[in-house]
Amino acid sequence: MNEKYDQLQTILTELAHLEKAVGVLGWDRNTKMPKGGAKARAEVVATLNRLHHERFTSDEVGKLLEALEPWAADQDADSAERRTVEYTQWAYERQTKLPADFVVERTKKLSAANQAWQTARQEADYTQFAPHMENVLDITLRLADFFKPYDHPYDVLLNQYERGMSTQQVQTLFDFVRGHQVELIAAIAEQPQVDNSFLHLHYPIDKQLKAGEEIVRAFGYDFNQGRQDETTHPFAANLGYGDQRITYRADEHFLNPYLFAIMHEAGHAMYEQGIPEALWGGILYRGTSSGVHESQSRLWENLVGRSKPFWAWYYPRLQAHFPENLGNVSLDDFYKGVNRVAPSLIRVEADEATYNLHIMLRMEIEIALLGGEFTVAELPEVWNERIHKYLGVTPEDDAQGVLQDVHWSWGLYGQFPAYALGNIIGAQFWGHIEKALPDLDAHIAKGDFKPLHGWLVDNIYQHGRKYPPGELIERISGERLNGDAYVAYLKNKFGAIYDL
Amino acid sequence: MNEKYDQLQTILTELAHLEKAVGVLGWDRNTKMPKGGAKARAEVVATLNRLHHERFTSDEVGKLLEALEPWAADQDADSAERRTVEYTQWAYERQTKLPADFVVERTKKLSAANQAWQTARQEADYTQFAPHMENVLDITLRLADFFKPYDHPYDVLLNQYERGMSTQQVQTLFDFVRGHQVELIAAIAEQPQVDNSFLHLHYPIDKQLKAGEEIVRAFGYDFNQGRQDETTHPFAANLGYGDQRITYRADEHFLNPYLFAIMHEAGHAMYEQGIPEALWGGILYRGTSSGVHESQSRLWENLVGRSKPFWAWYYPRLQAHFPENLGNVSLDDFYKGVNRVAPSLIRVEADEATYNLHIMLRMEIEIALLGGEFTVAELPEVWNERIHKYLGVTPEDDAQGVLQDVHWSWGLYGQFPAYALGNIIGAQFWGHIEKALPDLDAHIAKGDFKPLHGWLVDNIYQHGRKYPPGELIERISGERLNGDAYVAYLKNKFGAIYDL
Repeated sequence: MNEKYDQLQTILTELAHLEKAVGVLGWDRNTKMPKGGAKARAEVVATLNRLHHERFTSDEVGKLLEALEPWAADQDADSAERRTVEYTQWAYERQTKLPADFVVERTKKLSAANQAWQTARQEADYTQFAPHMENVLDITLRLADFFKPYDHPYDVLLNQYERGMSTQQVQTLFDFVRGHQVELIAAIAEQPQVDNSFLHLHYPIDKQLKAGEEIVRAFGYDFNQGRQDETTHPFAANLGYGDQRITYRADEHFLNPYLFAIMHEAGHAMYEQGIPEALWGGILYRGTSSGVHESQSRLWENLVGRSKPFWAWYYPRLQAHFPENLGNVSLDDFYKGVNRVAPSLIRVEADEATYNLHIMLRMEIEIALLGGEFTVAELPEVWNERIHKYLGVTPEDDAQGVLQDVHWSWGLYGQFPAYALGNIIGAQFWGHIEKALPDLDAHIAKGDFKPLHGWLVDNIYQHGRKYPPGELIERISGERLNGDAYVAYLKNKFGAIYDL
Repeated sequence: MNEKYDQLQTILTELAHLEKAVGVLGWDRNTKMPKGGAKARAEVVATLNRLHHERFTSDEVGKLLEALEPWAADQDADSAERRTVEYTQWAYERQTKLPADFVVERTKKLSAANQAWQTARQEADYTQFAPHMENVLDITLRLADFFKPYDHPYDVLLNQYERGMSTQQVQTLFDFVRGHQVELIAAIAEQPQVDNSFLHLHYPIDKQLKAGEEIVRAFGYDFNQGRQDETTHPFAANLGYGDQRITYRADEHFLNPYLFAIMHEAGHAMYEQGIPEALWGGILYRGTSSGVHESQSRLWENLVGRSKPFWAWYYPRLQAHFPENLGNVSLDDFYKGVNRVAPSLIRVEADEATYNLHIMLRMEIEIALLGGEFTVAELPEVWNERIHKYLGVTPEDDAQGVLQDVHWSWGLYGQFPAYALGNIIGAQFWGHIEKALPDLDAHIAKGDFKPLHGWLVDNIYQHGRKYPPGELIERISGERLNGDAYVAYLKNKFGAIYDL
């Protein structure tokens, strides 16, 4: 082995430990912390993040990477050593490009923007947020400029979440998928609507939690290495090897929010539970990209959790938890009910067939704003016009429209595409899983998720962040990322449900 | 202000933030963490502790302290600036005296000793622990040697918990108190025993928690800045300004363990909640010593929580929670029941009249072992002989005797005295509180704890770690630490209960 590589690993481990400490502080803040602790907690987190940044961008790391570059190039392309050096180089270059005073300025402006957004959203008053949105746009463009030359400033932002993907690639993919989805939704709108009123009865939360635990345990989520807790905005958190937690929000008058979110978050958490201990403490100990991560959460939530075989197994059990509500609802009606398509205003409440359009709208707007195609002042108008064009709905106010998501106020340009990419990547994987596991549906219909979980561990989870998303997709499917499987899946599934 | 002082404060704040991060990681480990996360968590904590140690013992801190010493000496004796420099100097000298390789060796030996203790205790087999106890003794003596010259090696250990107290002072104090306590217990043993069988009925835990919350909220514990959670060994944790949590263990067949422990932990947490925001981030943001901290927890638990006025207020409410168990038990019987004196083997289950003797036994043994008065092999024999002498009880095995506490396996020599000091200091304070608040009992009997809580904030809590324990005690009481008030309190209280 290489002594300098060991030195690098020692530093990366220190950084990983700082990240996990920040992770625990964040999980705690979002699930347990009394509200009085917010201010001090933010200070503690800021200190740990500063220590992390200082250490990672130190000359020591730069020199080690320089010395290790030729050595790493000689290592096996699949080795953790080579991939560690490559990923660290990539991340080091990104972090060192931003001057310290710019980082401070950005953090302050985003913090102010986020506060303004909270009030603006509550009061459904975009004018309060607009000047901050100008600041965010300005600082985002300046951030991109540190990475010149680029083909497109959006590449810089997208790459924070999808290493190696280009704006053009994603745009082409989305253009293809969008056409089919708009067509599908229009066709569905002509058909009689399915009933899902039984999902809106009284579902006591303790029973929901029990059902959720049964389901995700069967999927393969390990409660010896995790737990579920209530929060405001559900998330999954990897708090160190052997500790991957999921969080939920439950509505006692609507079954979906808890049930499908817990499958979703368990999908994220199982990905991280499947990364081997050998990678713990290194820079590869994490899912490879936001999009691939979403492919795993959406796979368990939708491709499994909203499928016929899944409900063939679980529906009798769910009925046993809620006999008053579901005793007289048939499996087929239940299946159709949880797959009901109804264009709506709010992204996080969108159904499987319309969800991507919410994302594509946001990506288009981000790119157009960066390119100066319209102004920040015109944004609500553009939003309302396009959401009507895609989904036929019109927001009553900006809280239901342009102000609904937190992302822009935090400067998270470039993150939205991951959510739609996740759906598309998941379907592309699924096609290959079905070939590899011909009895997959039969297993799922018996509640046996071991073959599926095992395949995901072997082909995706175990690699952690070793392969960039594009490379991982090609390794698995032998093809570049494309929307064929996803479009076919949607048409097939909703064609059957809506008799198209 | 002084620029170098600001530089020191900046470093101290970074250290405080690292400590609080470790605090959250510890709270989480003891209350929420899935067991699979233990190994990785220990690594993360070790890294943060190492970063803390490296930063605190850096030359930069040494130089700043050297430069600030004359300036600090000119500041007002009550100023946070002077006390900060003084305390930091004291702590810096302690930390820098230990060579890094010694610290590593010690940590390893203690970790092995702790593991061996866990098995030895489970199997009630002292011989498994004895070689590790030899190691702990050896490394503890070597630790003390780095602080030569000393009057007594135990001074070095005691000072980790009680800055500025001497072994001789504590021994003299304990000798005085011990005589009276042994006499009192002997007298009680001659009297008819009081009944407390009603405390051992079925008490559903959710109702216990409700009662506990009512009580500590009335005391002044602020749930907007705290919460209560289940754990194995109850503790209180200050996780940053505005976030002081308490933990509990509850027994559904015995009311005492939860009810008095929650008052105890709330006492610790209220102390920390009372430290002003101005001290947050500095080295004085903490209770001043283990003994003074225990004085506050034991004050709320015993001087308030096991008093007649308290139960005059709360007993009807407790009866309303548990009418089946307590409906026919009179206030006087209940009061006597929760104050029942019965010499027993286990320290953490001891009653108020016998508790200190458990502590004194441990301190005597620690000092005698350090002085070579007997060997590690002879320890169980010495233990059994002395516990019989003090309390008239004999352990059936070493798990009930010398192996019962975790402290020695972690090298925590010198910490035990704090528990008895807390009782003694609390009583000394109480005498002065009664003078300052002549209507104290009447207020407590109405459930009005504001005057008491306010007095504690003004005289103790708000100072944080500004005054060393001895100085704080003299500031408040005008006297040196002494056992008069405590002995009078015990004789008066138990004399009435047992008709002495």
